[in-house]
Amino acid sequence: MSGDLVVALSGGIGGAKLALGLSWILRADDLLVVANVGDDFEHLGLHISPDADTLMYTLAGLDNTKLGWGRRDETWSFMETLTALGGEDWFRLGDRDLAIHVERTRRLRRGEPLSVITADFCRRLGVGPRVLPATDDPLRTKLRTDEGWLDFQDYFVRLQCRPVVRELAFEGADAASPHPELLAALRDEQLRAVIVCPSNPFISVEPILAVAGMREALSACAAPVIAVSPIIGGRAVKGPTAKMMTELGMKPSAAAVAQRYGDLLDGYVMDNADADEAALVAPRVTLAPTLMTTLAEREELARVVLGAADALASLNRAQNFA
Amino acid sequence: MSGDLVVALSGGIGGAKLALGLSWILRADDLLVVANVGDDFEHLGLHISPDADTLMYTLAGLDNTKLGWGRRDETWSFMETLTALGGEDWFRLGDRDLAIHVERTRRLRRGEPLSVITADFCRRLGVGPRVLPATDDPLRTKLRTDEGWLDFQDYFVRLQCRPVVRELAFEGADAASPHPELLAALRDEQLRAVIVCPSNPFISVEPILAVAGMREALSACAAPVIAVSPIIGGRAVKGPTAKMMTELGMKPSAAAVAQRYGDLLDGYVMDNADADEAALVAPRVTLAPTLMTTLAEREELARVVLGAADALASLNRAQNFA
Repeated sequence: MSGDLVVALSGGIGGAKLALGLSWILRADDLLVVANVGDDFEHLGLHISPDADTLMYTLAGLDNTKLGWGRRDETWSFMETLTALGGEDWFRLGDRDLAIHVERTRRLRRGEPLSVITADFCRRLGVGPRVLPATDDPLRTKLRTDEGWLDFQDYFVRLQCRPVVRELAFEGADAASPHPELLAALRDEQLRAVIVCPSNPFISVEPILAVAGMREALSACAAPVIAVSPIIGGRAVKGPTAKMMTELGMKPSAAAVAQRYGDLLDGYVMDNADADEAALVAPRVTLAPTLMTTLAEREELARVVLGAADALASLNRAQNFA
Repeated sequence: MSGDLVVALSGGIGGAKLALGLSWILRADDLLVVANVGDDFEHLGLHISPDADTLMYTLAGLDNTKLGWGRRDETWSFMETLTALGGEDWFRLGDRDLAIHVERTRRLRRGEPLSVITADFCRRLGVGPRVLPATDDPLRTKLRTDEGWLDFQDYFVRLQCRPVVRELAFEGADAASPHPELLAALRDEQLRAVIVCPSNPFISVEPILAVAGMREALSACAAPVIAVSPIIGGRAVKGPTAKMMTELGMKPSAAAVAQRYGDLLDGYVMDNADADEAALVAPRVTLAPTLMTTLAEREELARVVLGAADALASLNRAQNFA
């Protein structure tokens, strides 16, 4: 009944950690990692896809563990020189990272879809699983803040998440289509689970869910949909998730993230530290250590999440036979 | 009568050596270096201006003396990664060099003229003299070869000057205008000399001369026009000058270059080694060591050329009074 294919919806850093864990325990063909494109942007004339790149670098073992973002063995000659020339240097682009953006931009201008270029980069960088942009259509996250509407990277990098967020919008989402391979995977009888990685719900996962038809496709899919909380003990491991929750009128908690996803979820994995919130969560809860500091912890959490998904699927089958 | 301003017409490497010598003996305000734009091109979505950049790097002391082209202290992470991604890597772009191209392209797309951007880069890189593109309009050198018509960089870099050259054309030259500051300089009463640097006549100097109105402006200018031979003892110091001369039906010699420039020249500086060709040259010949291996030789040749120009100007004045 339940098959082998796992779809993981992911933003950048946090999501990539779990995606890496999944990549170690699944065959490459059995993992489809769907990347948020809401924080893609044009900068210095280049098309930059931060989340897809973070996923590729992480899955290829090329991620810069010292910086926590960007590429391993990076050099900074370009940026140094750009600064000397008076160029826009608020978004740091390493010399190796830059090659991805230049080559992606060249191929996009030639008319190739983002997904095809991403697949080719994965192959060339030695990434096993497929990394698929949620859509090949333009979709951009915008934030209404106390400083007005901001482009995502203006908010996230230039202003370092300082503005107070009032509202989010995903420009282009209504006109965008989920990538056909993503839709096919969600309809696939061999689908084992959809995993919502522990990414920021507002700026990493919801831009994926906002693509026209995505929520419907997820609701219709037979396999369990299970999310991992990005909040542990009321705090985000990294990034502005907790701050944004507060600004948007939510209590920053693991339970509130599950409530935000609503009936999209069949299961929810939250940290042992948040056990007292389990009763507030509608989908079936699995408690586990969710902080992924070591590589072993990524693999272990991946096992826990898949185990929880498989248990949900069994339960579902049992109920169907009942 | 004769003033202080010196205009130097230059291509890349060879011309930049003399321009550097001139920059050491002239006040920065007294030197206007006019750069060939015929080998500018679009590559990887970037506007690359090889000759202006070589001039800037050389005049700023940032030239890569080890490679003989590009920037000092260069790193190659971008190129390495681009190769790994299957990108177009036949044109080598260092990480620091790349910053110039990215920033130039960004500003061109914003509508700034090439000359304004170049002037700003010069200021930021610490280049004293003005480096001025011959024109802000598009002008591209094309070569008809035994492999058909080729873009300049296809011929020069990708095919390493191997094809046999039959004919050259300067696309856009008829519709291009010399930069107004160049025209003003040529009309300036304070103009001391126009120096045609020892660059390749066909691909470095003639694209400058091809800009509509340039030959007329040079002919009309009151100051002496003096060229330095790029050929010593029948051979080019660097590059395909001698090979191209042969292919175009000329004897590769210092005299033939002077003949090619024709009555544009009032004076010609050629190497002592070519003394026996002096009789074949119509403009007044100055013999000197023209090989600029050391920095001192660049300065010395600059003094010789300026001295020859000043002598021509005196002679001219004497004749006018006669």
